[in-house]
Amino acid sequence: MEKRVVVIGTGNVATHLTEALLSAGLPVAMLFSRTPRHAAEAGQRFQLPYTSDWSELPSDAGYYIYSVSDTALPEVLERKLAPEAIHLHTAGSIGMDVFGATKPRHGVLYPLQTFSKNKALNFKDVPLFIEASSPEVLGELNQLASLLSTKVRTISTAQRRQLHLAAVYACNFVNHLYAVADELVQDSGLPFEVLIPLINETAAKVSELTPRQAQTGPALRGDQGVMDKHLALLHDHPQFRELYTLLSKSIADKGSSNL
Amino acid sequence: MEKRVVVIGTGNVATHLTEALLSAGLPVAMLFSRTPRHAAEAGQRFQLPYTSDWSELPSDAGYYIYSVSDTALPEVLERKLAPEAIHLHTAGSIGMDVFGATKPRHGVLYPLQTFSKNKALNFKDVPLFIEASSPEVLGELNQLASLLSTKVRTISTAQRRQLHLAAVYACNFVNHLYAVADELVQDSGLPFEVLIPLINETAAKVSELTPRQAQTGPALRGDQGVMDKHLALLHDHPQFRELYTLLSKSIADKGSSNL
Repeated sequence: MEKRVVVIGTGNVATHLTEALLSAGLPVAMLFSRTPRHAAEAGQRFQLPYTSDWSELPSDAGYYIYSVSDTALPEVLERKLAPEAIHLHTAGSIGMDVFGATKPRHGVLYPLQTFSKNKALNFKDVPLFIEASSPEVLGELNQLASLLSTKVRTISTAQRRQLHLAAVYACNFVNHLYAVADELVQDSGLPFEVLIPLINETAAKVSELTPRQAQTGPALRGDQGVMDKHLALLHDHPQFRELYTLLSKSIADKGSSNL
Repeated sequence: MEKRVVVIGTGNVATHLTEALLSAGLPVAMLFSRTPRHAAEAGQRFQLPYTSDWSELPSDAGYYIYSVSDTALPEVLERKLAPEAIHLHTAGSIGMDVFGATKPRHGVLYPLQTFSKNKALNFKDVPLFIEASSPEVLGELNQLASLLSTKVRTISTAQRRQLHLAAVYACNFVNHLYAVADELVQDSGLPFEVLIPLINETAAKVSELTPRQAQTGPALRGDQGVMDKHLALLHDHPQFRELYTLLSKSIADKGSSNL
């Protein structure tokens, strides 16, 4: 594959995607950010040409990948650019209709993963969900995606939206609960690290058991005595109490609907 | 160590503890459950003597480990049994005062982990938090615990209670969010397995970054457009909507308090 790739955006997703493209030996022609400093940082990070000026972007690349915030995407796509190229966005919750008539060959390359710039990961294991404007574009996109990851799957916009929603629970909300737990153990003078084996095992369990089979704890057992003690310990944390009450209720309801 | 161990209880914790005792080469004298069927199942599982009759328990073992529900524990401890032995419970939220004057040598062996009978794990990696009625008992308990795990730490009852509370967030509540995500991806006709790399990476990140550094997603970015779309997708799941709203608010508040 000799088609050159332009990456628009320099956030967490764009950074890991650029790294994956380079690891796969694909030619990345240029990196773009509207913010000159971000463009320069990304260019220096990867030793690649960069710009924050639309007019400097090459018009003859094969792929333009837009990895910007959902709010910035429509504005970014207003730019007239390389009408023959394949234009791709990476957003979970945005349809394909965001590409106007000026970009007839388009699609979505949605990586279902949590990316932080300073946390390395193996992109080959990241599930990539693709969708395209035509079977021909889908074929090309599938080729591209398969160079980046071993886990490529074609899905619809509706499925992708639902996946994105599920990912908010399985990742963003989960991580927030880690943050709450972090604060609670630190309150007691212990380091967050004591929770790491528990966190890892909780994640590992659902590769072998369904989440429902894996559920444990006082809410599932209906152990009101323990739950009352826990709520008492949370007297200085009204927001954590609210979370405790709602999540416990949700566990209890789900558990009983299983009987 | 030739002191024999009696395990009272046959639940998830007791099962993994019994396995760990045997793996460490410790002599388990007998398994006990008040429910004859549970006692028999446990005895057959481990090929060990078992009973559901208190009078059949040996009175000359070195350790009696009570791994029963918090509500059953006080009643179980009323039994007069081996006043010279060391008596231990494994509960996160129960103090040492639960042992009466008839069991002067006592302590706590609290494993900070999520156990399901049908999910194997390496007990050597399970953090064990210990507490004892005297320095002498603590020394013996530390020896015992160190045969079971490489991660033994002495903490107070107050710290253990706080750890148990933190574990509910980092494990029980996290697993419940996996269950919610499971339901959402299945709604869209995709299997839960597509979320596994995301779940594993979310857990792995907090070994390298603090949970606050690892946080991503629409609530942190304040992306109301995405959040509104997600809430709209949840119209048939009022309880999931409630969780979405409360967790997003909690993320936003925590994020801003970090500025």
